[in-house]
Amino acid sequence: MPRALILYAHPCDDSFAAALHGLVCDTLAARGWQVDDCDLYAEGFDPVMTATERRAYHDIGANLRPVADYVQRLRNADALIIVAPVWNYGFPAILKGFFDRVFLPGVSFRMMGGQTWPALTHVSRLCAVTTYGGSRLRAVWAGDPPRKLVTRVLRRTTSPARMRYLALYDMNRASPARREAFLDKVRKEMEMI
Amino acid sequence: MPRALILYAHPCDDSFAAALHGLVCDTLAARGWQVDDCDLYAEGFDPVMTATERRAYHDIGANLRPVADYVQRLRNADALIIVAPVWNYGFPAILKGFFDRVFLPGVSFRMMGGQTWPALTHVSRLCAVTTYGGSRLRAVWAGDPPRKLVTRVLRRTTSPARMRYLALYDMNRASPARREAFLDKVRKEMEMI
Repeated sequence: MPRALILYAHPCDDSFAAALHGLVCDTLAARGWQVDDCDLYAEGFDPVMTATERRAYHDIGANLRPVADYVQRLRNADALIIVAPVWNYGFPAILKGFFDRVFLPGVSFRMMGGQTWPALTHVSRLCAVTTYGGSRLRAVWAGDPPRKLVTRVLRRTTSPARMRYLALYDMNRASPARREAFLDKVRKEMEMI
Repeated sequence: MPRALILYAHPCDDSFAAALHGLVCDTLAARGWQVDDCDLYAEGFDPVMTATERRAYHDIGANLRPVADYVQRLRNADALIIVAPVWNYGFPAILKGFFDRVFLPGVSFRMMGGQTWPALTHVSRLCAVTTYGGSRLRAVWAGDPPRKLVTRVLRRTTSPARMRYLALYDMNRASPARREAFLDKVRKEMEMI
């Protein structure tokens, strides 16, 4: 049974992000995926890299110990699905810290001859489901960092046969109809993934 | 006496970032700046926005309460200086969370007629001092989010007569001479700021 790791980051269980999260998990489970639902807020994930971790960062083996469980869950994943809002042109700090602390040398990449090589090549499906308060134009003006993180950095770190970046922009002014249409789009993508 | 708020984010006091941090604080103080040294690690800043904060986000007044002290320090600043490394194409989570939790509506921007207007217009000097593990080419390939955050987003949020983005790329392979040259460059910029 293929396994999907969901990285979810939103503090409110009545938010639109929570609705997207529930939809993603339910749709994948109904399509036969084994869902590992990593709800960073619910799990109390600490995003702050410690001095000990920083010092062991390049020491493969020792660097994994403080986050060994998260590393294992990442290594088990055939699909990686991010469900999170965009705040201040980036993912919430709790998710940024997941990349800082878990996407380590020896986990997401390997250093060889001064170059980095992807190490999450078992991840064959990559998807982000996200929402922006502001318009797409504003995101593009700021370089749209979350989109580039997923479609360039994570894409290169993994080996996705299928990659999707699903974003609802201008959330602050989104009509119920636009929100419904986005939920529908996400459902269809999860059915096909 | 003009006031400089330093936002510093690194866990190790023997790091190159710590050397940059000390140099920035000392040089500014010697040039007559009143230095407010906000060392996020030392102050134990929690970067995770809570559900209560998220719910009050747009409620100007209530939204400031959990971070009132940080808001005041930001409002007192004539200069804003970021000293932090770039990890995974972004600032460390502890600093990302500072933007999430403190750069609030009514603090860093105001909403009027569906548009955002800058609110840190008292900040007349803006500077980032940062280091990247990888090359500049690699950062550009990923969109160089920290550079755009400073030179586009923060620049628009403030009113800098002087703005600098000082970056040492390819830190993992930097010679002692290159590091020394960068320290020298940072010192000169702080003397002129």
